[in-house]
Amino acid sequence: MDGAGLLKETPEAILSRINPCSTLSEALSGADYIQENTPERIEIKHDVLAAIEANAQPDAVIASSTSGLLPSAMFENIASARRCLVAHPLNPPHLIPAVELVPGPATDAASLHTARTILEEAGHVVLTLRREIAGFVMNRLQGAVLDEAFRLVEQGIVGPEDVDIALRDGLAMRWSVVGPFETVDLNAPGGVFDYIDRYGPMYDDLAIGSEGRADWKGPVRDVVTADRRARLAVDQIPARTKWRDARLAEIARNHLDKREKS
Amino acid sequence: MDGAGLLKETPEAILSRINPCSTLSEALSGADYIQENTPERIEIKHDVLAAIEANAQPDAVIASSTSGLLPSAMFENIASARRCLVAHPLNPPHLIPAVELVPGPATDAASLHTARTILEEAGHVVLTLRREIAGFVMNRLQGAVLDEAFRLVEQGIVGPEDVDIALRDGLAMRWSVVGPFETVDLNAPGGVFDYIDRYGPMYDDLAIGSEGRADWKGPVRDVVTADRRARLAVDQIPARTKWRDARLAEIARNHLDKREKS
Repeated sequence: MDGAGLLKETPEAILSRINPCSTLSEALSGADYIQENTPERIEIKHDVLAAIEANAQPDAVIASSTSGLLPSAMFENIASARRCLVAHPLNPPHLIPAVELVPGPATDAASLHTARTILEEAGHVVLTLRREIAGFVMNRLQGAVLDEAFRLVEQGIVGPEDVDIALRDGLAMRWSVVGPFETVDLNAPGGVFDYIDRYGPMYDDLAIGSEGRADWKGPVRDVVTADRRARLAVDQIPARTKWRDARLAEIARNHLDKREKS
Repeated sequence: MDGAGLLKETPEAILSRINPCSTLSEALSGADYIQENTPERIEIKHDVLAAIEANAQPDAVIASSTSGLLPSAMFENIASARRCLVAHPLNPPHLIPAVELVPGPATDAASLHTARTILEEAGHVVLTLRREIAGFVMNRLQGAVLDEAFRLVEQGIVGPEDVDIALRDGLAMRWSVVGPFETVDLNAPGGVFDYIDRYGPMYDDLAIGSEGRADWKGPVRDVVTADRRARLAVDQIPARTKWRDARLAEIARNHLDKREKS
C-alpha cells in the first residue's frame, strides 16, 4: 500500500518496531496480546495453542483467527481458556476495519476488553459476540446474501452480475454509510418500529429461505463460473485483487481524513 | 445537494428543462419515457396507469416505481402492457446508481431496452430481472440480511449496532467495491468454482434460515428500537438522513471523478 496515504509515520519507523523471531518463546516474551493466524485445521490450532500457552506470559490474551472453527473446540484443551478468544477480521485485514471477537464458554470479560482496546487502538472497529455461533456474525450475514444470490441465479431471475450491481451500486453503497438497522430506521418517519409496521408484512410474504437453499455445487455453479470467467480470467485474479485493495485503501483514507478532521 | 459537485451544469440550466404541468395530457405530450411514482396501492396504480395509457404516445415506455406490487397485478388491465415495466430505485434515488427493471408477463424486450438506455444516460446502473418475483432482487437481498440480522439479535448473539458494524465497516465496505460474487471469486486462488469447493461445506453447515425467520414484531422489535432510539431520537431522523445523503453524495462524486478520468 505504498503511497496510499494511510501511514502517519515512515515505513522505516514502523518496521523498526516489528521484530521477527525464530522461536515461539522469543516471540511471546513480553507480549500482552498474541494473535495466531495458522491454517484452519483443528489439530494445527490445538498444537499451536498448546505451545503458545506454554510460552506466553500468564496474563497475555491469546487470540485466534478463524472463520470456520468454534472457540469451544479450539480451546477445549487449554487450561487458561479464560484468556483465549477468536478475533476474526475480513480479507484484506489491513484495509477493512471490522473485526469480530468471539468468546468461548470459558473466555472472561477482561480478555475480551483487552483485545477490543488493542484492536481499536490499531484502527479496527470491533463487534463482540455474546457467545459463539457457527459462522459467527460476518459469515452468517455473508452467507445469507450468498444463499439468496445463488437462489436468484439458480431460478433464472437474474445473472450473477445483476446481483453484484444490486449490492455494489445499491444496497452495499448505502450500508457502507449506514448499517442495515440504521438504514431501515431512517426509511420510515417513526424509525425502525414504524418501518416494521409498514414493511414487515412485505418481508413476511417474501419468506426468504423457506424454499430451502440453492445447491451451490449444482448447475448454478457453472452459470456463476462462466459469468465470472467471461469478466476475469483466473490468472487476472491477483491483478484485480490489487485493484480492489487500492479502492479499499482510498475508502479507508477517506474515513481516516474524516476522523482526523472531527 | 447544493455544492456536492455532482452537477456538470448550473442548476438554472437544468431547471430550464423541467416543465411542471397541471394536466396529465400536457405532461405526457411528446414523452418517450414516463415514470410514475404514485403511492403503492394497487387501486391507485390501476387508475393512474389507465390514465397514463389513455394520454401517452403509442410507443412511450411506461415505468412504475414500486417495491411491493407485482407488474403482473399492476398492468393486468392495461391493453398496451407490452410497454409497461417496473423501474425500482433505492432511496435516495438521486444518489444511488442501482435501478432494477422488472418486466411483467407481457412486457417486451424493446421497452426494457429503452428504459435501460434512458436510465443509464441519466447515470444509473441498471439490473434487469428476466421475470418478476416478489420483492424483486434488491428487497430480497435486503430481506435476507435483515432476516439474519433480526435472528442474531433475537437469539442474543449480538446487539443491533454490532450488526451495523459488521456491514458498514466490513462486508458492505467490500461489497461496495466488488459485489458478493466477485468478492468470493477473488477470495480463492481458482476463483468462485474453487471457493465453492473450499468454503461451500462451511455455508452448508450454517444452513442459514433453516430454523425459520425471526418474529420482527416480537420482543426483538423492542431491543432494536431501544438501541436505535438511544443512538438517535426520532426527531433527529431528518438531520441524520441529510448527513447520510451528504456521505452518499461524496461517494457518488468519487465514482463520477473516476469515470471522467478513465
